[in-house]
Amino acid sequence: MPAPFRHAAIVGKYQAQGIAPVLLELARFLQQQDVAVSFERETAEATGIAEFGAHDAQSLGEHCDFAVVVGGDGTMLGIAREFSRHNLPLVGINQGRLGFITDVPVGQYKEALATLIAGDYEEEHRSMLEGQVFRDGQPIHEALSLNDVVVARGVTASMVELRVDVDDDFVANLRCDGLIIATPTGSTAYALSAGGPILHPGIAGLVFAPIASHTLSNRPIVLPDSATVRITLVAGRDASAHFDMHSLASLQHGDCVQVRRSAYKVRFLHPRGWSYYATLRRKLRWYEGVV
Amino acid sequence: MPAPFRHAAIVGKYQAQGIAPVLLELARFLQQQDVAVSFERETAEATGIAEFGAHDAQSLGEHCDFAVVVGGDGTMLGIAREFSRHNLPLVGINQGRLGFITDVPVGQYKEALATLIAGDYEEEHRSMLEGQVFRDGQPIHEALSLNDVVVARGVTASMVELRVDVDDDFVANLRCDGLIIATPTGSTAYALSAGGPILHPGIAGLVFAPIASHTLSNRPIVLPDSATVRITLVAGRDASAHFDMHSLASLQHGDCVQVRRSAYKVRFLHPRGWSYYATLRRKLRWYEGVV
Amino acid sequence: MPAPFRHAAIVGKYQAQGIAPVLLELARFLQQQDVAVSFERETAEATGIAEFGAHDAQSLGEHCDFAVVVGGDGTMLGIAREFSRHNLPLVGINQGRLGFITDVPVGQYKEALATLIAGDYEEEHRSMLEGQVFRDGQPIHEALSLNDVVVARGVTASMVELRVDVDDDFVANLRCDGLIIATPTGSTAYALSAGGPILHPGIAGLVFAPIASHTLSNRPIVLPDSATVRITLVAGRDASAHFDMHSLASLQHGDCVQVRRSAYKVRFLHPRGWSYYATLRRKLRWYEGVV
Amino acid sequence: MPAPFRHAAIVGKYQAQGIAPVLLELARFLQQQDVAVSFERETAEATGIAEFGAHDAQSLGEHCDFAVVVGGDGTMLGIAREFSRHNLPLVGINQGRLGFITDVPVGQYKEALATLIAGDYEEEHRSMLEGQVFRDGQPIHEALSLNDVVVARGVTASMVELRVDVDDDFVANLRCDGLIIATPTGSTAYALSAGGPILHPGIAGLVFAPIASHTLSNRPIVLPDSATVRITLVAGRDASAHFDMHSLASLQHGDCVQVRRSAYKVRFLHPRGWSYYATLRRKLRWYEGVV
Repeated sequence: MPAPFRHAAIVGKYQAQGIAPVLLELARFLQQQDVAVSFERETAEATGIAEFGAHDAQSLGEHCDFAVVVGGDGTMLGIAREFSRHNLPLVGINQGRLGFITDVPVGQYKEALATLIAGDYEEEHRSMLEGQVFRDGQPIHEALSLNDVVVARGVTASMVELRVDVDDDFVANLRCDGLIIATPTGSTAYALSAGGPILHPGIAGLVFAPIASHTLSNRPIVLPDSATVRITLVAGRDASAHFDMHSLASLQHGDCVQVRRSAYKVRFLHPRGWSYYATLRRKLRWYEGVV
Repeated sequence: MPAPFRHAAIVGKYQAQGIAPVLLELARFLQQQDVAVSFERETAEATGIAEFGAHDAQSLGEHCDFAVVVGGDGTMLGIAREFSRHNLPLVGINQGRLGFITDVPVGQYKEALATLIAGDYEEEHRSMLEGQVFRDGQPIHEALSLNDVVVARGVTASMVELRVDVDDDFVANLRCDGLIIATPTGSTAYALSAGGPILHPGIAGLVFAPIASHTLSNRPIVLPDSATVRITLVAGRDASAHFDMHSLASLQHGDCVQVRRSAYKVRFLHPRGWSYYATLRRKLRWYEGVV
Repeated sequence: MPAPFRHAAIVGKYQAQGIAPVLLELARFLQQQDVAVSFERETAEATGIAEFGAHDAQSLGEHCDFAVVVGGDGTMLGIAREFSRHNLPLVGINQGRLGFITDVPVGQYKEALATLIAGDYEEEHRSMLEGQVFRDGQPIHEALSLNDVVVARGVTASMVELRVDVDDDFVANLRCDGLIIATPTGSTAYALSAGGPILHPGIAGLVFAPIASHTLSNRPIVLPDSATVRITLVAGRDASAHFDMHSLASLQHGDCVQVRRSAYKVRFLHPRGWSYYATLRRKLRWYEGVV
Repeated sequence: MPAPFRHAAIVGKYQAQGIAPVLLELARFLQQQDVAVSFERETAEATGIAEFGAHDAQSLGEHCDFAVVVGGDGTMLGIAREFSRHNLPLVGINQGRLGFITDVPVGQYKEALATLIAGDYEEEHRSMLEGQVFRDGQPIHEALSLNDVVVARGVTASMVELRVDVDDDFVANLRCDGLIIATPTGSTAYALSAGGPILHPGIAGLVFAPIASHTLSNRPIVLPDSATVRITLVAGRDASAHFDMHSLASLQHGDCVQVRRSAYKVRFLHPRGWSYYATLRRKLRWYEGVV
């Protein structure tokens, strides 16, 4: 069994109402378990909880051996990107609605965490994307994504035309609202709404999902995640690129958005007995027939 | 560069009209290239071409170092399964319509084969499925598939109910017309018609695609191909299992169809410059916008 | 306000466990409301309830002024076809799961029926299909459908090829698993699973929904319900035709399934305040976001 | 047979290269057929063709008895909206690519027009949408659409939340990229890319097609075109409304986009023998199987 955890970073969705007492109770519970606690800076400042310090990601990454994140999938996405360089494992506690990646309900975290701290858990690694935007051959923007990279048309344009190449192969010229390149983690987010398939986290692949393609046979493709995908803006005004919904507006014709797997992975810890398929069933409500 | 090929097995879609002279010309061309030629038994018998012998797959697998298959994707599927145990690489020549896996046009094979025989080619490995049907815990049927394994409702049943497990995890109870488990090769066949994604051949995954699911959120999933998928018939009369369209009718309630990756792979040879994406573009007609 | 109802036909899903006391209580409740009660023959015989007689549809159609149907959508489909020639309005009581067309919950029928019997209700008319199968120009089969007419491939065939004409216009040659022609009522049944749109009951249209079409751009079409649709079997063995799931197996090449709107309509009565969209929301579970 | 036409309005896609000689030849051909010719103002000015005058839509609508439109579907959309108040029938000549509503090829218009002018043609009426935007109960914008009305999220918003009501019924709260309300004419445009069904022009219905809905069961609906659809912006920044792609940016929370059928219809004239289904086959390329 892995060695027990000794020092937790606590991160919360600090904008959420009533989160301060939840985080405080969590911190005290961890201390009772002989786990040291440090608060992430913005969480500490926004909630006014001062007694556990206020540390930046760099410092937490160096001193903590795991992080407990309280909030929804959005909170987890942000912090996972920040911590990915430090290889810090993450546990997600959701405050109401089950998340795809925040799977411990806030009402049941004590038992789940106690067991996990003792070293009894399941660990899962999720791949990330490294996106770069090139203009005239020079990188002008770069970002990490745990979910997806999206290139999309401007609001008043009727479409965008995108040339897509994978490694040295030309794939297609797409006329569409946009194109999503998603990780397995992102396959249950925006890509799913756009008609993409669900990728089990163990798949070494990327979802390539056109949005509202004018060519009806432009179906979603799963590409090897060893591939480098290059998306070049051929036509369409006010196009933009988005990295986990962080946007870079005003792409110009000829700009190229390059996407490849990051060298970093995110480590998620789950209570023993966690099942990816159980989360799918509950989130997509498969427990009961529909029609 | 790989060593040149010396002994070709020739297999043809022998039911096709006018195929005999094509195969004869092919055989003579290969001989001119100093390649020995042996004919597959059924091809020889149906076409009446006797001079190159008539050998079964076992014998061809032992004596030949590659096979040239003339026909469509269906011909290739059948022969690929037969040869897979012998690790014999295959080249596909199509007689008109470009195939996903028969990519050399019959009018242009001479140049393509000459170069390939000399050792200049691209080689690609495709995974296969090993399907087994269990009744009362005993195997009653087994088959190899290069495309897919399908479990489907009977014609007069309104649906089938299938319980699906992956390894030790319960996935879902599906009420649907059927379920397709497809390889990357099969992802552009029936699974695509049923709404599944395209899997690049390099993806170590299986398409899980429900057919006409009653639950609208039962979306296609890509599973790791290291997984063992078990599909148990819970309800629905006259259900059947299909392995690359070879059918086992009359599944009984409680029967379990188990699917996993075969230990064998199919080796395809392509002329240098072959591109998977170019085949997709041409087969799915992406060269031009539609709407 | 319409005149109050005076004589109810009672029809039940007589195979369902525990339905006899429910029907008996319903009958007595109606009598207390000064409504005469007659039982449908099979319902009376299967439940052993003898005191209200056992009448066939013909007799009920002549003597009753409305029918109360207890069961699910399947029960309602069957009885609605039988009663359609008699213009008898129907009220549907479901025994657990809300139906698209059986919308009064069994636990709440008393208030709903009392108000309705007094003449306060919403009435809705649903169109039906008249299907005919022609062989060598002669009709060999005909049937009414409230949901749909389906032409489908045989279990061991890889596809069926269907030529479709609408009135005097050739529409397409489809290579597919099958083709569904659905009424608005049927648009939320099998056609929805196959990817068809939802048709509001007020639409004078038919859903044309190919099943697993090999041509990815063969998208669902909504045809005017004044159209005569002719589906001719061009290729594919063991094809079959289905009328609300009642099957005619063994179509032969050249057989033509003709579909047009029936002269009869089904009349459904709903409690005041009934909303088609509320039923959609509840059946398709729109009350909450999914992803 | 209808009376022959005597006075044509000529409208061209004046931005297209080389259109001037095409329009000039068309005008002379019409004169040879004893048809008077008037040019639309912008067409005359942009092409420098002065001899037939330069008239605005109002004047053309009063003096002409039909219009010949040379260009693509986009040109036709614009002019059809302008002429709809005048009940002027339109013939569409396309300059290359077949349009859904510009169906006479430029190389074959002489024979087609000669017959049509003589009174031998097929006439078809297409419904239009009247869209209005209300803020605090006051109309702030209105527009006609022949294709569609779209409400969409801003580029940097992750979604828009829309409350939809049809007449007096609440339909749903959608969380999505946007919502399309399309006429039958618009059903083969953007709505088709977004997953909507094709509506035969004879259907008295509107396509309701959510774009990338977060709720996977939010399927396209066909609503009666007698309905008034009200779309209220509940959440989502920088949302916008679009009427045949003419945009009104910056919707505010609480703004309501109301859509209903216009009192005006567009009249299209087609050469005898025109078939809606033939256009579908050619535009969606159904002439050949795909997979």
